[in-house]
Formats: sequence, C-alpha cells, structure tokens
Amino acid sequence: MPDDGQSLNLRPDFNKAGGLVPVIAQDYETGEILMLAFMNEESYLKTIETGEVHYWSRSRKELWHKGATSGHVQKVKDIYLDCDKDAVLVKIQQVGNVACHTGKRSCFHYRHTKGDQYELI
Amino acid sequence: MPDDGQSLNLRPDFNKAGGLVPVIAQDYETGEILMLAFMNEESYLKTIETGEVHYWSRSRKELWHKGATSGHVQKVKDIYLDCDKDAVLVKIQQVGNVACHTGKRSCFHYRHTKGDQYELI
Repeated sequence: MPDDGQSLNLRPDFNKAGGLVPVIAQDYETGEILMLAFMNEESYLKTIETGEVHYWSRSRKELWHKGATSGHVQKVKDIYLDCDKDAVLVKIQQVGNVACHTGKRSCFHYRHTKGDQYELI
Repeated sequence: MPDDGQSLNLRPDFNKAGGLVPVIAQDYETGEILMLAFMNEESYLKTIETGEVHYWSRSRKELWHKGATSGHVQKVKDIYLDCDKDAVLVKIQQVGNVACHTGKRSCFHYRHTKGDQYELI
C-alpha cells in the first residue's frame, strides 16, 4: 500500500468484466446517487478528455455521451477509483438537475418496503 | 410509469449480467460511498432476511457476508432499485467505520489528478 498523497500511474482495470467497469455518478454537492452505468476504456478516456461523463451503453452497444440528446450532461468534478481499480466513482454536476430518462432526478426511485415490495418515490 | 407511492412487486433483474447486479453501499448518514460490489439472488435475499449486507464474491465465487470475519458488518437502513432494476443502492450503517479491506473507511481512495495520474487519499 503506497503512502497517502503519493502520485500513482493508474487506469481502471477493464479486464475483469468483459472490458467494462461499473461507474457510480454522485452529485458533487449533495452526495445523492444519481445513476449507475458502465464505461469501457474509450468512454473513460473521453470523459477525462472532455470533462463530461461518457458511458458505454450496454443495450445500444455504443459510446454514450450522457445528455448529448437531452442536454442533461454530467460535468466531472472528481473521479475516484476503488482499492481494486475495478469500480469508478464520478462526482458530477448534473446539468438540468435530471439524470434519469424517466425525468426524475435520480435513477434510484424504487424503495424497498418489505419482502418483494417496493414503493415508487 | 406507475404513480408515486404505489406498491410494486419487484426484484433486481439478475439476468442482465450473468446472475449478478452491481450494488452501491452508501453511508446512510453522511452520503459517503463506501464500496461497490455485486449480489446474486441468494445474497440479495439473505440481505433482506438478515438486515445485514451479503454480497457475491466474484474472486472467491461464494456468498460473502460482509464483515463476518472482520466484524465490520453493514446494517441495512434502506434498499433502492434503479429505473431498469439492474442496479441496487443500499444505505447502510457501517459497523467499525471501516468498509475497505485496506483499513480505510471507503474503498474509493484513489483520486484522479490528470492523465493517468491518481493520488492516494
């Protein structure tokens, strides 16, 4: 384990899950979790290059510049890797205050109540 | 899209990624992201049954009761599903205040600085 503050040459480990890593998008001010999606190496590099979050769309199988159509882009404030380098956390400013395609602010809008029951929040 | 507050019969969709869904563990009080891991259906049901987070260990290929060895269990406060039901957010109380196997509170301790450079925080 290197010392705190040490500079390290790192990228996410894209080999663990078929070229993809899960990415958590968190509001940089409120700490609210807005969505979870995936990046491949191309989308990771595009995110760093542009300062706006790019994912890999597993359904469309293409580079996904989040908000390119809706205008709800995600401005990168900070990027973190976890201890195993197989997960990414991006702290973002969510333009338009809406991350979800349903029009809600966060994608996490089903809250568990009991058993198999959830309520929509 | 159902109405807000409506009760829905749901489980995570375990079919999208080989029986696993990514799970974000977030401190229920501070909003800090502590770790990202995976659940299969068995670990999801165990989590609900026991009120303590169970994951699926991809490296050991076994049910992983987080903290069973270290004592750093994660007490479930709330469980959320996202709009596609393919990601889980658990809001937890982290016993011992340490989630990471490195002894740090959060697993996300590499912060991007520039290019391929990260600093350990």
